[in-house]
Amino acid sequence: MTDQTAIQTQILDAFAFRHATKEFDAARKIPETEFTTILEAARLSPSSFGLEPWQILVVQDHDKRALLEDVAWGANGRMNGSKGQLYTASHFVIFLAHRGQTMRHGSAYLDRHLREVKHFPEEALGGFKGAFAKFQTSDFNIDSDPQITDWSARQAYIALGNMMTAAALLKIDSCPIEGFEMAPVTEILGREFGVDTEALKPAVMAAFGYRASPPRHPQSRRAAEDAIRWI
Amino acid sequence: MTDQTAIQTQILDAFAFRHATKEFDAARKIPETEFTTILEAARLSPSSFGLEPWQILVVQDHDKRALLEDVAWGANGRMNGSKGQLYTASHFVIFLAHRGQTMRHGSAYLDRHLREVKHFPEEALGGFKGAFAKFQTSDFNIDSDPQITDWSARQAYIALGNMMTAAALLKIDSCPIEGFEMAPVTEILGREFGVDTEALKPAVMAAFGYRASPPRHPQSRRAAEDAIRWI
Repeated sequence: MTDQTAIQTQILDAFAFRHATKEFDAARKIPETEFTTILEAARLSPSSFGLEPWQILVVQDHDKRALLEDVAWGANGRMNGSKGQLYTASHFVIFLAHRGQTMRHGSAYLDRHLREVKHFPEEALGGFKGAFAKFQTSDFNIDSDPQITDWSARQAYIALGNMMTAAALLKIDSCPIEGFEMAPVTEILGREFGVDTEALKPAVMAAFGYRASPPRHPQSRRAAEDAIRWI
Repeated sequence: MTDQTAIQTQILDAFAFRHATKEFDAARKIPETEFTTILEAARLSPSSFGLEPWQILVVQDHDKRALLEDVAWGANGRMNGSKGQLYTASHFVIFLAHRGQTMRHGSAYLDRHLREVKHFPEEALGGFKGAFAKFQTSDFNIDSDPQITDWSARQAYIALGNMMTAAALLKIDSCPIEGFEMAPVTEILGREFGVDTEALKPAVMAAFGYRASPPRHPQSRRAAEDAIRWI
């Protein structure tokens, strides 16, 4: 078996392994270096224009997790009679999407990001900022605060996917969670988690750990010919 | 080195390898089995409620690629004086996001997907459909066609991220592309690519191949403490 063939098998095995884990073995913790690798997969993910328009909260305080119980039906286990991801996950993550305050073209935040993170030379800044302004106002027409926030969330989903894939390669389970009520979660994050909800909005959650039991259902997806067309 | 340590190194190496490739070596084609693995990483990606609300076009016909030249500034190379991804990529992909016609709760498409792809038993269908209707209309408040399309696009970005990561693990380069003008691209896809633009809207493009030259800039990202907060 060549290296390339072995890596293909490893990738396909990881995607076969991964499923939306409903309940984790609460006694098992992900080793610190392995979770650091999973977080690095997020941090090093690509994003549009390199703007990294998201933040990650890693919620390890179980009292904080409990605050989400009644407003995160996709994580409290009630729908499927399990103990839920909130209480059993080794690591529980909330992705926050940047809103217009930081991600609208011309913002002070973007200026700082381009200079201090992207190390743009002064002479290249103007061209970049012009291209980004055109992108927002014309190409993609995402000029309102909700539209900018949605665009930020899209970039977060790249990082989310990469975290779950890195985990699966390490035989670590995960579950992405959109099953929450946006308004009360936003309110709780502002009040109890110190999130500036004028600048950030919750996008998606994800739980990581080790499955408590085998998946209840076999993996199901559209056939390749229904999802992919060659031209 | 334990297996887990070796896999961590392999993951971090892949994320260090990956960069937004501006120009590919047009003479080098990705072997068919390897690109199939990259497509499988998309097809087997998770999505909200398991609804897979995206389609992939793999555009290998260079006459079709040329139709996008003037409306995809992120792929035509003009901004950076390269030959561009459109002409040099081994494989060029367009993600399409499902619109409200198929992804609004109660649609005939969703009903068929739940029965034929997800193999939902008849007695579970009602509960699932109710939960999804509540999710769209109340939890996430995404009831308009643009909002539903944006939500579909988010799911596509999970698959996009996984394709690029699978490629990087195989030492294959890639570039995600939001640099295009939405309105004319949509019009061209409808007229020349046979896309039903009442049902589908372009979300993002991606090019795959082998870099023509080393990256021009070192990789730059926020520090972990600026992107991630532990609670």
